[in-house]
Amino acid sequence: MTNWIHKINSPDDLKKVPLEKLPEVAEEYRQFLIESVAKTGGHLGASLGTLELTMALHYVLNSPTDKICWDVGHQAYVHKMITGRRDQMATLRQPGGLSGFPAPWESCHDPFIVGHAGTAISQAIGLACARDIRKGNEQVVAIVGDGALTAGLSFEALNHAGQLKKNMLIILNDNEMSIAKNVGAVSRYLNKVLTHPLYNKVRGEMEKQLQKFPRLQKLANTSLDSMKHLFVPGVLFEEFGFRYFGPVDGHNVIHLVKILKDILALNTCSLLHVITKKGRGCEYAEQDQEKGHGVAPFNVKTGVKMEGARETNSTHGISFTQAFSDAILKHARRDPSVVAVTAAMLSGTGLTDFQKVFPERCFDVGIAEQHAVTFAGAMARSGLKPVVAVYSTFMQRSHDSIMHDVALQRTGVVLALDRAGIVGADGATHQGIFDMAYLGSVPGIVIGAPKDEFEMEKMLELGLEASVPFVLRYPRANIAKLFDEFPKRSFQTGEGEVMFDGEDVTLLALGSMVEVACKAHALLREKGVSARVVNMRFAKPLDETLILESIRKTRMLFTLEEHVITGGFGAKVLEFLEIRNLRTVALKRLALPNEFIEHGSREKQLDSFGLSPEKVADSVIKELSGQKKREKSAGFGIEPNPR
Amino acid sequence: MTNWIHKINSPDDLKKVPLEKLPEVAEEYRQFLIESVAKTGGHLGASLGTLELTMALHYVLNSPTDKICWDVGHQAYVHKMITGRRDQMATLRQPGGLSGFPAPWESCHDPFIVGHAGTAISQAIGLACARDIRKGNEQVVAIVGDGALTAGLSFEALNHAGQLKKNMLIILNDNEMSIAKNVGAVSRYLNKVLTHPLYNKVRGEMEKQLQKFPRLQKLANTSLDSMKHLFVPGVLFEEFGFRYFGPVDGHNVIHLVKILKDILALNTCSLLHVITKKGRGCEYAEQDQEKGHGVAPFNVKTGVKMEGARETNSTHGISFTQAFSDAILKHARRDPSVVAVTAAMLSGTGLTDFQKVFPERCFDVGIAEQHAVTFAGAMARSGLKPVVAVYSTFMQRSHDSIMHDVALQRTGVVLALDRAGIVGADGATHQGIFDMAYLGSVPGIVIGAPKDEFEMEKMLELGLEASVPFVLRYPRANIAKLFDEFPKRSFQTGEGEVMFDGEDVTLLALGSMVEVACKAHALLREKGVSARVVNMRFAKPLDETLILESIRKTRMLFTLEEHVITGGFGAKVLEFLEIRNLRTVALKRLALPNEFIEHGSREKQLDSFGLSPEKVADSVIKELSGQKKREKSAGFGIEPNPR
Repeated sequence: MTNWIHKINSPDDLKKVPLEKLPEVAEEYRQFLIESVAKTGGHLGASLGTLELTMALHYVLNSPTDKICWDVGHQAYVHKMITGRRDQMATLRQPGGLSGFPAPWESCHDPFIVGHAGTAISQAIGLACARDIRKGNEQVVAIVGDGALTAGLSFEALNHAGQLKKNMLIILNDNEMSIAKNVGAVSRYLNKVLTHPLYNKVRGEMEKQLQKFPRLQKLANTSLDSMKHLFVPGVLFEEFGFRYFGPVDGHNVIHLVKILKDILALNTCSLLHVITKKGRGCEYAEQDQEKGHGVAPFNVKTGVKMEGARETNSTHGISFTQAFSDAILKHARRDPSVVAVTAAMLSGTGLTDFQKVFPERCFDVGIAEQHAVTFAGAMARSGLKPVVAVYSTFMQRSHDSIMHDVALQRTGVVLALDRAGIVGADGATHQGIFDMAYLGSVPGIVIGAPKDEFEMEKMLELGLEASVPFVLRYPRANIAKLFDEFPKRSFQTGEGEVMFDGEDVTLLALGSMVEVACKAHALLREKGVSARVVNMRFAKPLDETLILESIRKTRMLFTLEEHVITGGFGAKVLEFLEIRNLRTVALKRLALPNEFIEHGSREKQLDSFGLSPEKVADSVIKELSGQKKREKSAGFGIEPNPR
Repeated sequence: MTNWIHKINSPDDLKKVPLEKLPEVAEEYRQFLIESVAKTGGHLGASLGTLELTMALHYVLNSPTDKICWDVGHQAYVHKMITGRRDQMATLRQPGGLSGFPAPWESCHDPFIVGHAGTAISQAIGLACARDIRKGNEQVVAIVGDGALTAGLSFEALNHAGQLKKNMLIILNDNEMSIAKNVGAVSRYLNKVLTHPLYNKVRGEMEKQLQKFPRLQKLANTSLDSMKHLFVPGVLFEEFGFRYFGPVDGHNVIHLVKILKDILALNTCSLLHVITKKGRGCEYAEQDQEKGHGVAPFNVKTGVKMEGARETNSTHGISFTQAFSDAILKHARRDPSVVAVTAAMLSGTGLTDFQKVFPERCFDVGIAEQHAVTFAGAMARSGLKPVVAVYSTFMQRSHDSIMHDVALQRTGVVLALDRAGIVGADGATHQGIFDMAYLGSVPGIVIGAPKDEFEMEKMLELGLEASVPFVLRYPRANIAKLFDEFPKRSFQTGEGEVMFDGEDVTLLALGSMVEVACKAHALLREKGVSARVVNMRFAKPLDETLILESIRKTRMLFTLEEHVITGGFGAKVLEFLEIRNLRTVALKRLALPNEFIEHGSREKQLDSFGLSPEKVADSVIKELSGQKKREKSAGFGIEPNPR
């Protein structure tokens, strides 16, 4: 083995490789990638699919002057390797290591950090428009793959791009053959014709000449348009105003280099349709989409997932996702009007079983969160009981649909927000820590956060019967076994429960923080502090009775939530106190800072932000002593050293 | 004149009219509509365009069993008239009167209230899926017009509809000829062929027979597909999986009735392309798009807008929109990197002049708010200074783009939110009263609210230099002239100013509420209360120094904002007090209730929600007396009668 890739630390190094040697280099990258991702975990399949394409792009383009926009970012591992980050691949998605997505702060070759799908065409138009205003001449390329084209944002951008007709290239990385199924001998032939520089030169020249004769041009355009439909397989994109090329084999790196050179030389608004295979060259990744798309480390020979520490942890049971999966199936068996909607997150949100049992009542709309919610709102209007299950971070896309197409319509849709909290290795683009802030002001909305399976099932039941948007939020975590020792009490919307009674302070905890509060309770008891622990269950509506009771029984309140501090559960308690004129109540909010949080271990990050049992206990003790001082002083209460 | 329409109080009444008399009825509706909207104001042009289509739909369908989804709702005035609301048309958009949009609480013929574009296809699929799960057999029709097709939501839904192939009909109301420009003799001929029942029967039969011979079917499909491109003008929609019909003349009501019958009899997933003319039959509405789309009452003969009361009000100057328009033009002249983006709201947001002067730096992306912001984020990354100007309510569509494609990228985009506050006649779908709540937790965001032209210009300048999302929010209102008497002080981001000093209470006012606070100051002075008035200018970051100073100088704080109470400016002040451990500070928030607010006069609604100078003064006096009582009592402060 010649060991090419160890000499390649930049796109310029890659360009020194003779064209005919590129397939050899590709195989080296492939082996390196498989071995590397086996250790770190990550989206192996997507990057194996774009391996040759990435090489061809860097062989032809001049990055970072030329811009490469990835959509979504997990296709970009080979891009990371070529642009000087091969040595750091062992740190991929590890705390403090490389991000699983492109990241501008890692490399000047990454124009954007992208984890939500559907952004690249829009970003490419932006870069192209800016270039033209600045009178620049760099190339702008977007690689759109992995279903991102179904996102409304992609279509809005396609529509605009086709109107502006800027010099830019969209590469459609078609790895599921979902867009055009007409790949075959004729298409390949047409492709050769269409991408041949001579053909395009002739066409361009003809159009130029025709501009001088407007009436003639009209006639010619009509017949050109008619002809187009006979020749062009990607007529959809031609209708949008792109010059369409393809489909081409995305694993023939030499051919890709040639075709990219030809297309870029045209300096027009083009779309290249590339056919790739997810997991290409790695048998288990090709065959098993879940493994190809999965994120845990695995055995490099067999592809079998390594058992993580969490699964063997005896203090935790099933995941919240599994609890949701079980609960919706149970309710659906009971009630034929229960339907489920997701947006390309069927397995991630735990709907796989539901789909198997009730295929006609399960709708995976693709990456289309806006439609998922508006569509669900209409089904609710028609008497069904829809549950929309998506990740918290992606529900940001549905904000207007929740407001305008559910809440304003006075219809009931359950919004099951998985990954609502710290998400671990996916990092900043995927943290589900803003949902209560952006959903909290939707009129009539209910926001619940179950602490265990029992509450998941009961809350879902309450949500199915409600005629308002009803949010369930729960993190990417496993449910604590310690709740097994508590009685299972039924409840209504807005009703909390007391886990432990106490006299000194009250911990008002929401969802995943109930476990933390219970553990902090034990730690505080050891230090002589008697803490009342309330499982609030709902951030909206609040259990006002329990809060008032806590105020009467204890000297100080703390709110605990796995969410940013701004506009979260604690803020809602503050607002409640203001409305009730409870001005002298001592309340301290424990929450995440109002920042983007990088990838890392959930447990460690919760600890570093003061949300582990130990840190919560520390905060309580510190505040209690500060509170005593304040109570003694007659002053106005402005502290010399504010937090 | 036979006076047909006075006998029509339901779709059933319409069906009694002989087919050949429908054009006569249409003319009666046309005259009635023009005269009615001249008095009330409203979107005349859109409803004149869909007049015959609406009649044909109700002639053929059986509403409310069959469902009609409008997109957007302001095409639906004739629908309102046919479904029993003709007599109430004089109350259209008036306080307490008919909504300017369909509204389920007005009539069972309106499945949804819709004011944001792009919802109908998604809603129609939802109704169709629910029907099939319920084993119903009603028809579902969506009328999509007025550019709504560019919305990402529409495309997400088209994509899903084409996959599901449910029995439903999308009617594309093409009144700008923007989608397909190939209307002509050939198209009309093709249309006749395609919509003829025999043709479709043959095609359907053929497909049915072919299903028995899979291999043969494959071959036949290929050739059918090739042929399709020769025959079908709407190949775009055929690619999406719809059976396409049209384009047809949307003003030939008899032909429309026939074609709708034919298409609906097919029971398939169809798209009918209808060509209409906005303002049809009303010369000034046809010629002047602004008048056709405008909303003020007008002279029925000339179309000239009636002068409203506000324009002649000597206490108010130019509108906030005009102030923004002037400010961006000024900055753009100074700095060539300033660019503007809007989403089909060029004139509404005051960008018409900017576009005239800098056409190459002005981007109207159509109804595509997500793309508007992501696109702007990319231009910012490339060194430009983009300003995205849209209405507050529509920015909900951009939430994820602001979070993921601007804030997370650490780029600077100015978000100019017009109509941020009570909007008047447009009502619940358009109220701009939630923006601070949903944007407040975006990391790094700045939220400013100028009180006058001077602050608009200065804030825009600050925003252009910032590298974070920078929001300017301002209502649909005119700027108070009383500010002319105050000195114009320059300021930095997060810096407020004292308008009046005082000793008893402080009014912390934001944006449009500064005028109200100044007027309340005068009223309070008459009653012996000395109120300090602070123009906060920014809800985020807060001017902490000014707040702390106010706490020291006065006994009680009030926050004033034209926004719902939950998660707004006042909530941010509460959060600040908690963070600084200022627990004993008396703060009362004056804001709008956390509800959807119907249409009505802005001034009257502000008053009814306690945000007029008089009501603010009343609240202050009431709270001051309550505060005195609380200060005297040694108790815990839980009031017997909470608000």
